[in-house]
Amino acid sequence: MTGEFDLIRHYFQRPAQRSPLGIGDDCALLAPAPGMQLAVSSDMLVEGRHFLSTVDPVRLGHKSLAVNLSDLAACGAKPLAFTLALALPAVDEGWLDGFSRGLFALADAHGCELVGGDTTRGPLNICITVFGEVPAGAALLRSGARAGDELWVSGTLGDARMALEVFRGTLSLPAPLFEIARTRMEQPTPRVALGLALRGIATSAVDVSDGLLGDLSHILRASGVGAQVDADAAVGRVAIASHAERPAGGFDPALLRTCALSGGDDYELVFTAPAAAHAAVLQAGRDAGTAVTRIGRIEAEPGLRIVDAAGAPVGQQFASFDHFA
Amino acid sequence: MTGEFDLIRHYFQRPAQRSPLGIGDDCALLAPAPGMQLAVSSDMLVEGRHFLSTVDPVRLGHKSLAVNLSDLAACGAKPLAFTLALALPAVDEGWLDGFSRGLFALADAHGCELVGGDTTRGPLNICITVFGEVPAGAALLRSGARAGDELWVSGTLGDARMALEVFRGTLSLPAPLFEIARTRMEQPTPRVALGLALRGIATSAVDVSDGLLGDLSHILRASGVGAQVDADAAVGRVAIASHAERPAGGFDPALLRTCALSGGDDYELVFTAPAAAHAAVLQAGRDAGTAVTRIGRIEAEPGLRIVDAAGAPVGQQFASFDHFA
Repeated sequence: MTGEFDLIRHYFQRPAQRSPLGIGDDCALLAPAPGMQLAVSSDMLVEGRHFLSTVDPVRLGHKSLAVNLSDLAACGAKPLAFTLALALPAVDEGWLDGFSRGLFALADAHGCELVGGDTTRGPLNICITVFGEVPAGAALLRSGARAGDELWVSGTLGDARMALEVFRGTLSLPAPLFEIARTRMEQPTPRVALGLALRGIATSAVDVSDGLLGDLSHILRASGVGAQVDADAAVGRVAIASHAERPAGGFDPALLRTCALSGGDDYELVFTAPAAAHAAVLQAGRDAGTAVTRIGRIEAEPGLRIVDAAGAPVGQQFASFDHFA
Repeated sequence: MTGEFDLIRHYFQRPAQRSPLGIGDDCALLAPAPGMQLAVSSDMLVEGRHFLSTVDPVRLGHKSLAVNLSDLAACGAKPLAFTLALALPAVDEGWLDGFSRGLFALADAHGCELVGGDTTRGPLNICITVFGEVPAGAALLRSGARAGDELWVSGTLGDARMALEVFRGTLSLPAPLFEIARTRMEQPTPRVALGLALRGIATSAVDVSDGLLGDLSHILRASGVGAQVDADAAVGRVAIASHAERPAGGFDPALLRTCALSGGDDYELVFTAPAAAHAAVLQAGRDAGTAVTRIGRIEAEPGLRIVDAAGAPVGQQFASFDHFA
């Protein structure tokens, strides 16, 4: 027991809430309610890959949990608990204070309890495993899309990638637009309420972490179907593109398409539902307080066909954002 | 989707076994049996802290899961599943092949299924979250030790630390002893069967990762008790100290005490049980095929009292191995 370990504990140890046994034993104990399955997901965040070294630690704490909650949302699971494993190059009280505040603010907003974890010295690395519950058989899977289903996306697309391009020096944005885009990149909103509202309505879902087309392809592969995607409808979801302070003449259309269709870091849900459930999807969006936009349809023929609003093929190539590239 | 990602998947993706939904969706789904609680633990392993860069990747794969299974053992939980998050500086097929073989050999031996995870590029970091099941109310906790209980330890102590001292250059060992010690350091045996056999017998348990005294202190603090520990009984559990090829005159007694009492990386169980359960503890050890040794007793007076076999106080100071120091 060193002072440093105690210091770290100070920021993360809180009394157990719902779990039978919280932090401080060899294991945490979770007791899913009868008839419930436990949905589990792990994400690892590495400096320079998933966040910049300059990011506000409050925002990083938020994002570290948000990307995991987004996986629960994509399964229609209700957040219950999480574990946090953290490698830190040094004990920095200001960083720990900010990180833990951002983390717990989002955790508390979703009733998601920190039940265990690990801390070690090492290159900065944040690994969260999140637990949610979902009635047996009710989870939204990637494998349920059927030909004829409508293809939907939640919220907005591409703004996070626009911010990344600013950090990369390939784009400049007026300050108000940059702030919007940067907040989307650094502090994404997991669509937990929408995921819950889509249970029994959506036939498949995935969260958009590596880019719309790349993540959609997981659904297509798992479901054995293809899709036609309306690029203009997706571009219409780039928030800053329709902002009053956008550049005169707007943005380069090819840039907007890249950001909307393969930008990455959106943490929106892309999902499918039968055409007959169109009104139910819109109602689920209203119930969850999240915009939902139809951006295409599922087709029997495998593959992705990108078209414009008039139905003409879009020639542009799109590559998925790859955290290993 | 890049070739590199596909390559990594090749080593880790296997068909789902027991879990309703394995790797490849946003979440894995776990369904604990009725009346069962889920025991959860996360450990993060960092190069230079938890393993040396020169370690055989087969052994590292084993150890990465073993340290997590050891936490389940300390709770008396039966292993079910795990997630693996991995940051790799580069894709090295030889390393991935060895690591995955070592990992799955131990996983299969315990019927513990890989159900999800994450891979990213970054400084080598291995984060496993393990899931086990235990009947509600039956988990072995740190908080149940009572004055009068006997204090026990499983297996052997201190050999891993002896190997570390060789790597540090502060000790030299004859080759056969070094191989024994090095295997204990690099390929610890989680005491899962013993943890299960001790359900209903042990009053408290913890696994020895940071050193016997340091981990025992978790039990003492959680239980509000103290302990007397027989240093000679603990030293008697250092396997290489009684090996036929030990140096003439044996090892430095102070070194043996340090390694046995605060060596770290033992992954044995230290546990307490009522004196009336003495025979039941011995039987549990036989049933599990693991030696169990009485090394002291729990006392009402808080604090740790280290004595020799004759009951005289041992003056030596012991510090716990600290992965953050």
